[in-house]
Amino acid sequence: MWYKVITRSLKTLSYVGSYKKIRDRPHRLFYAAVLGTGYVAYSQYKKSKVEMKEIIQLHNYMAEPITPVDQLERNRDDMKTQMELLIMRIQAEFCKALEKEEDAAWEDEKTADEYDFENDVFLMSPEAKFKVDRWMRKEGGGGISCVLQDGRVFEKAGVNISVVSGTLPPAAVQQMRSRGKNLQNSELPFFAAGVSAVIHPRNPMVPTIHFNYRYFEVRDKDGVQWWFGGGTDLTPYYLNEEDAVHFHQTLKQACDDHDKTYYEKFKKWCDDYFYIPHRGERRGIGGIFFDDVDTPSQDAAFKFVTSCAEAVIPSYLPIVKKHKEDAYGYHERQWQLLRRGRYVEFNLMYDRGTKFGLHTPQARYESILMSLPLNAKWEYMHEPSQNSAEEKLMKVLKEPVEWLNFNKSEGREGRSTA
Amino acid sequence: MWYKVITRSLKTLSYVGSYKKIRDRPHRLFYAAVLGTGYVAYSQYKKSKVEMKEIIQLHNYMAEPITPVDQLERNRDDMKTQMELLIMRIQAEFCKALEKEEDAAWEDEKTADEYDFENDVFLMSPEAKFKVDRWMRKEGGGGISCVLQDGRVFEKAGVNISVVSGTLPPAAVQQMRSRGKNLQNSELPFFAAGVSAVIHPRNPMVPTIHFNYRYFEVRDKDGVQWWFGGGTDLTPYYLNEEDAVHFHQTLKQACDDHDKTYYEKFKKWCDDYFYIPHRGERRGIGGIFFDDVDTPSQDAAFKFVTSCAEAVIPSYLPIVKKHKEDAYGYHERQWQLLRRGRYVEFNLMYDRGTKFGLHTPQARYESILMSLPLNAKWEYMHEPSQNSAEEKLMKVLKEPVEWLNFNKSEGREGRSTA
Repeated sequence: MWYKVITRSLKTLSYVGSYKKIRDRPHRLFYAAVLGTGYVAYSQYKKSKVEMKEIIQLHNYMAEPITPVDQLERNRDDMKTQMELLIMRIQAEFCKALEKEEDAAWEDEKTADEYDFENDVFLMSPEAKFKVDRWMRKEGGGGISCVLQDGRVFEKAGVNISVVSGTLPPAAVQQMRSRGKNLQNSELPFFAAGVSAVIHPRNPMVPTIHFNYRYFEVRDKDGVQWWFGGGTDLTPYYLNEEDAVHFHQTLKQACDDHDKTYYEKFKKWCDDYFYIPHRGERRGIGGIFFDDVDTPSQDAAFKFVTSCAEAVIPSYLPIVKKHKEDAYGYHERQWQLLRRGRYVEFNLMYDRGTKFGLHTPQARYESILMSLPLNAKWEYMHEPSQNSAEEKLMKVLKEPVEWLNFNKSEGREGRSTA
Repeated sequence: MWYKVITRSLKTLSYVGSYKKIRDRPHRLFYAAVLGTGYVAYSQYKKSKVEMKEIIQLHNYMAEPITPVDQLERNRDDMKTQMELLIMRIQAEFCKALEKEEDAAWEDEKTADEYDFENDVFLMSPEAKFKVDRWMRKEGGGGISCVLQDGRVFEKAGVNISVVSGTLPPAAVQQMRSRGKNLQNSELPFFAAGVSAVIHPRNPMVPTIHFNYRYFEVRDKDGVQWWFGGGTDLTPYYLNEEDAVHFHQTLKQACDDHDKTYYEKFKKWCDDYFYIPHRGERRGIGGIFFDDVDTPSQDAAFKFVTSCAEAVIPSYLPIVKKHKEDAYGYHERQWQLLRRGRYVEFNLMYDRGTKFGLHTPQARYESILMSLPLNAKWEYMHEPSQNSAEEKLMKVLKEPVEWLNFNKSEGREGRSTA
């Protein structure tokens, strides 16, 4: 049993980009593996509303946590630990759910080209698995970037976590103060941990999803200030009202379990945030978006964020499964590429995360820009033709809809809020 | 003769997007045509260093000038008129030079599909001609956008002129003051006229070119301040040192004719400007870039800008002709698309023109964003392989080269300036 567990932990660790470095220090590996075993016993653990504390499940993560495991262990009650373990789990669950779709597509479509005659097995194409990069930051902390590119179902899928600490430059502090934070106006020590993902499927009938959940701590002379931020939003290429309702309903449920006022507020925030001013259109059909959540208590806020992060898979995977084999042709692909151009415009020009990230010295730009689609297109003066499916999408991007008041008898446009 | 000339002017005007509007007012059209005839007599006119004044050659332009022709005529000596006529001519000459390349490619490649049996002629594909949009701005002025998309030689070519006037918002005045302009700190009336173009060829062996030449006037209580800005720069996908030398040599000649210190200064400015900080690389191999040129006299500065604008065709077209039929495959196309992704990053994130343009209320975003390539690509963690042609390009993008001190005996890298 002990042997098996260690082997399993070894196998997990061999996933990690930094494996070679670890391999050169056998004592460290053994240490990590033994530590791992301590938690495998918990692996049958079921989430419950009573016990929200994350379990250290080394063998389930995409790579070794950024913070040393013994340090996480010593600080189990610290929110920094709680958040790091949450984002590690969310990343792994989401990546595995997507890989499962790739596996299924591979099973359906595998050809003789992928047959290894010598060993009498089908070879899995390397594109169908996430490439895992664990990276450390000189200034403190690091991250784990998981990218699947050129898969059968997903053209580009990036799921990133980062756990960083250091000193906030005065400009960043200034920006926080302008947002209403009562902070000293100087360089301040900070901690930030977050998970963020953008999934660009291949089939234009499957929407792109983005989500991001993060925790922030800043320390000044009066003590530590903390808050949570995040959101999940959907960017379809072709509008399917049923999917839009399912998506919003799932997010609303996650909100309602914590505060009945959240969904309405955070839905509007999302519509306002993902706006491309020069085009007068939203990036997609929204979802939820929030920042600076620090009530009613740290534990309650964490539970809310946990619910949101756990709602990603049920909000999105059913839509992927439903449409991943829908028929499409050149026309739909071209439209998808044009809309991906808009996605690029928003992310490079207006997204705070991208801008803030890229302007940070020594930023790992590959992890920040992995949100960009594999392919995008810009056509001069492209206009969808009248009464086309493309024009139908544009209408809801120009005037956001209250999907949960969506009433079929009112016609297929739902109720506009603009 | 009169009849012929009028017909010719009519034919030119029928090019214009706003033709229908003009057609509804026959008297206006007649007026414009007759005005045109007055200048056809000059069409044999040769440029000379002595007489720099632009001739109003309606029949040669891509559309009717933005400023009414009679107003241009009344203010022939005004720099605003001079500049508008220069950019009209530069736009037309450049568009026609590019169309000629499309024509030649069409002659070489035309197939039976394009044969009109009824009329016994080959049909020119509509993609091989510039689409001309003449647009007016509510606040004053307008522009002419010429775009050729999906051609045989050019994947996307945009050549835009704009002639606008109105009131500068305080933020824009503030930005000019921070650049050293001695201006009152309030809303100020302004005039701006410029030509700008980005050409993305299909063949990855042919570089992308960008140029922009502009004239600016601001009036405050102390009178009118004016200046010129502009530049031309090249973005190859595969480095050809001979082409780089030819390109820089042609621009240097245009500078040297006016001021022997210009090329060195403006070449460095170009390397500094087209920089993508998060990647630590330049967009291309540079060229020249300048702003705030207001010496030694308005006339001399205009002559300098005229020389630069006239140097675009001789700097670029020989390179197009030389490489437009070079062999390439999937690999080279993929690299071109990745580099076009970098082009998008620079233009959306760092280019002052794009940012300034898109943040202007009621900006014509289609004209601003026509600089974006038809297709672009982002791959996670793409690295050119060692000693590849792609890596050779990356070297000069990371460390700009003094092409005109380029010495073959020093090896193929030239002399680095970084």
